[in-house]
Amino acid sequence: MTYAPPIKDMQFTLDQVIGAGRLSETDLFAEATADVAEAILLEAGKLASDKLAEINRSGDLHPARLENGVVRTSPGFADAYQAIAEGGWVGIAADPEFGGMGLPLTLTSAVGEMMNSACLSLALNPLMSQGQIEALEHHASEEIKALYLPKLISGEWTGTMNLTEPQAGSDVGALRSKAEPQGDGTYKVTGQKIYISWGDHDVAENICHLVLARLPDGVPGTKGISLFLVPKFIPTEDGKPGVANSLKPISLEHKLGLHGSPTAVMEFDGATGWMVGPEHGGMAAMFTMMNNARLGVGVQGLGIAEAAYQKALAYALDRTQGKGMVQDTGTILDHADVRRMLLQMKALTRSARAICLDTAFSLDMARATEGDESAKWKARGAFLTPIAKAFGTDVGSEVADLGIQVHGGMGFVEETGAAQFARDVRVTRIYEGTNGIQAMDMVGRKLMDGGAAAEALLGEIEATAKDAQAKHPRMADVLQDVGETLSDTLDWMVKAEPNDRFAGSVPFLRAFALVLGGHYLLRGAMVGGDEDRIALARFHIRQVMPAAIGLCAAATEGAAPLYALDADQLAS
Amino acid sequence: MTYAPPIKDMQFTLDQVIGAGRLSETDLFAEATADVAEAILLEAGKLASDKLAEINRSGDLHPARLENGVVRTSPGFADAYQAIAEGGWVGIAADPEFGGMGLPLTLTSAVGEMMNSACLSLALNPLMSQGQIEALEHHASEEIKALYLPKLISGEWTGTMNLTEPQAGSDVGALRSKAEPQGDGTYKVTGQKIYISWGDHDVAENICHLVLARLPDGVPGTKGISLFLVPKFIPTEDGKPGVANSLKPISLEHKLGLHGSPTAVMEFDGATGWMVGPEHGGMAAMFTMMNNARLGVGVQGLGIAEAAYQKALAYALDRTQGKGMVQDTGTILDHADVRRMLLQMKALTRSARAICLDTAFSLDMARATEGDESAKWKARGAFLTPIAKAFGTDVGSEVADLGIQVHGGMGFVEETGAAQFARDVRVTRIYEGTNGIQAMDMVGRKLMDGGAAAEALLGEIEATAKDAQAKHPRMADVLQDVGETLSDTLDWMVKAEPNDRFAGSVPFLRAFALVLGGHYLLRGAMVGGDEDRIALARFHIRQVMPAAIGLCAAATEGAAPLYALDADQLAS
Repeated sequence: MTYAPPIKDMQFTLDQVIGAGRLSETDLFAEATADVAEAILLEAGKLASDKLAEINRSGDLHPARLENGVVRTSPGFADAYQAIAEGGWVGIAADPEFGGMGLPLTLTSAVGEMMNSACLSLALNPLMSQGQIEALEHHASEEIKALYLPKLISGEWTGTMNLTEPQAGSDVGALRSKAEPQGDGTYKVTGQKIYISWGDHDVAENICHLVLARLPDGVPGTKGISLFLVPKFIPTEDGKPGVANSLKPISLEHKLGLHGSPTAVMEFDGATGWMVGPEHGGMAAMFTMMNNARLGVGVQGLGIAEAAYQKALAYALDRTQGKGMVQDTGTILDHADVRRMLLQMKALTRSARAICLDTAFSLDMARATEGDESAKWKARGAFLTPIAKAFGTDVGSEVADLGIQVHGGMGFVEETGAAQFARDVRVTRIYEGTNGIQAMDMVGRKLMDGGAAAEALLGEIEATAKDAQAKHPRMADVLQDVGETLSDTLDWMVKAEPNDRFAGSVPFLRAFALVLGGHYLLRGAMVGGDEDRIALARFHIRQVMPAAIGLCAAATEGAAPLYALDADQLAS
Repeated sequence: MTYAPPIKDMQFTLDQVIGAGRLSETDLFAEATADVAEAILLEAGKLASDKLAEINRSGDLHPARLENGVVRTSPGFADAYQAIAEGGWVGIAADPEFGGMGLPLTLTSAVGEMMNSACLSLALNPLMSQGQIEALEHHASEEIKALYLPKLISGEWTGTMNLTEPQAGSDVGALRSKAEPQGDGTYKVTGQKIYISWGDHDVAENICHLVLARLPDGVPGTKGISLFLVPKFIPTEDGKPGVANSLKPISLEHKLGLHGSPTAVMEFDGATGWMVGPEHGGMAAMFTMMNNARLGVGVQGLGIAEAAYQKALAYALDRTQGKGMVQDTGTILDHADVRRMLLQMKALTRSARAICLDTAFSLDMARATEGDESAKWKARGAFLTPIAKAFGTDVGSEVADLGIQVHGGMGFVEETGAAQFARDVRVTRIYEGTNGIQAMDMVGRKLMDGGAAAEALLGEIEATAKDAQAKHPRMADVLQDVGETLSDTLDWMVKAEPNDRFAGSVPFLRAFALVLGGHYLLRGAMVGGDEDRIALARFHIRQVMPAAIGLCAAATEGAAPLYALDADQLAS
């Protein structure tokens, strides 16, 4: 596969659309200048296109396997992981005190997109470590930080999240894993965890598991859960992997995609662990990690969308078939519907990119500013996070699916790689909180401010429509109109009962994302003034975004219609 | 997998919604009474649920493979195929003169749905034979009919379609295969064909290939193509498989899904063949076969949708996770968004079923009536066919995808079978004319009557809205409104330039199908009067169908916006 890092559009989106230049004006991110950003993006793009893209298919064809209790990863994965670690990419956002680069999440996201485009299976590994680094930075004791952070940040060791159990998926509070205090500051952790991404492997010398478990006096539900750091090999005092801990992968899942990423069932059998964060405070610590991981997963979807688009366009430009009514390239690109598919892919991908980067930017600004300003950015980032996760990953699936269609019969043949994108990305809509749960978060917790953060965003959208009125009146009108429909829907949501909100949450999130996409693309068209950005914005606003109207209608029907059929009627 | 044939809804749709009882009032289908239909559906349903469903996963896990030049099919497939053949299901619609049952396509489609639900990979085999039977019935000489039809109809031999070549997919006219007349009524056929479903196998004793090739004096393009029957073993005079012909499978595709169905690259090396239809008239003969095969492929999508829905509902009713705001079943079915997904799946599946069955019914009535009445039914069936194909298969993919989502993490694990549905059904949107080509057919060839057939259907939709006004005014209003938008879009299409039509064809087809779905479901709700049918119609009309508004807006933007970006701009 030839992958061309979309650095130009990333820079344009960051600088011109989002105004991420403001980051380097803060003390915290003063070093993240445009020059540094460019150097980072170029270097990461090189790694992605030169090293990672070439192992993507190998991971699919030769899945990680469990042999004699140890996971053997796909050919080439260990070397490619070394390249990621040695480039310092695991610790890109981490605290410089422990060896990190301390760069903003905005840049981490852009770098993540490129790695995800090139090899999602492998890129999932550092994403897990990054979540763990963040959780430890915020919640671990100084001893744990000093011992583990340098190893995780350098990539010598990797991190995992152990939440899910067979009976406790979306309902984390139902977990049964136990932790017994040993009186010496350690705990014996016992339980079985499923869906553990990179739960075991041979690409690094140690694996640090963050495990949710219940202390003996932990109450049922989420309030009785604590978080434990449980390493595969217990570190010696000088930070070497020591004795093996009482834990092991007992099986790997046979999955639809992401074959290069070993997904393990992990068994902890009185394994030695250290508590992270307070007793019974595990969920809060876990949420620190999950919040940004959600954005990271949205960026996974984005990465696949970009890669699938590039592959489909390359195929279209290579394939001669029939004569289009317009004769230009002599390839299937001359056919109107092929163009429609490619434009849809491009518009959705760019929308998702702007949403993900703006989410990251908001979270960065929240950290880099103080007081009311910080609170405003924090609320903005919090509202955008579930949108970035759900829309980014939905777009990943949709664009990959369109990519298959552009390939015609070749899309169904695995050799092309078009199908692999669709298979690999599918889980991103499920893990890290299903997209349904993201939507519930958006209309539940994220509207507890009475809709203030959402309204502020709608205000930005309206401002874009106003600014565009003179030069692009038709686009401005549509954005204005659809924005108003969205605003009415928001008003309805804020007043509605919780289950009525939940009932309409998925269409509402989708509608919001489509309108945000229109807003970003139109802003880009105005700022850049290039014909191609104008044309893409027009396509999105006039042909993709109008779906928001039907979605808003569906979003405000309330819960009652969904319960009108009982289980027997559903089955009949 | 437990599969419950949806016979009740099929009968209801046939009898109450479509009025398929009119078939048995014709001479041609006088024997297809309600009693016969019920017996057929019950028997086919039994075969599907008892014999076919159990091999579905085996086909996925143990793909057909090519060994020493011969294809070995998946475990259990040969026996299951025998059961299909011995039940007479291959020849269900075929001419009784040659051993067929002579039943209407309406029943064939309902039977096909069940077989597709149970095992799409295997059910594709008789679908291929059925297309060939139809082509031979219409175009073959009496000798060929007498020799081949009884074998194909009994299922002792199977049929394939050989159209595609590497450089000739959607553009069939670009094919290079040659046929040299031998002066004895036979031809030597030479060429390579790709994507040949069931091109070789071990489930029957002979395989009859219908091959498109060019005679020495054939002009370039589709007008120079003829059709040849090329058997794997040349039949002896008493109809036994004789000497091996000069043809062989040279490789099998490694596909995203349908692993149980061998997809071969076939090499014909001066193979002996017999012409079917006139010289240079191959395309017409092939179209006979492809027309109904398109409906058959739509029904493949429908079958997967039904099976995926059943599996997702069963999973939802088994899975306890979190507490829904409504506490009813104690399972994830209590969550609003899970219900939304299931209702969406059910509404789309039922819409697709009604569309496919009404298409079949129209084609049957066209055969069973004469003169203007026949012409009217023919035009109706012709307009509906691309909708049935594209919408049926799109729905297959969408419902299977939602099925994965309902399964949560388990949806990504292959053991559940949810992912297999999505993988298997994906190709149905590509083969037998991509769904983009279906849409072009709909707004091109199928509007050459000035939109008369489309308008007649819109009239039926309007009548449903009127009939519903008294009892279901809100549904009636929405159907009326959206129907009018669709009607305006149709007017635009009829007047527009070809490429402007093509540019909007996919959204237009989708919008038309969604509105047709609303019409059928509302009619069913009125006729049946059951609370569950009313609730499902309401969900569809108020929450699914409104997407047609945005689609119609997109459909009328014309081609220019799609060509605003050149290849370089698309790549930047």
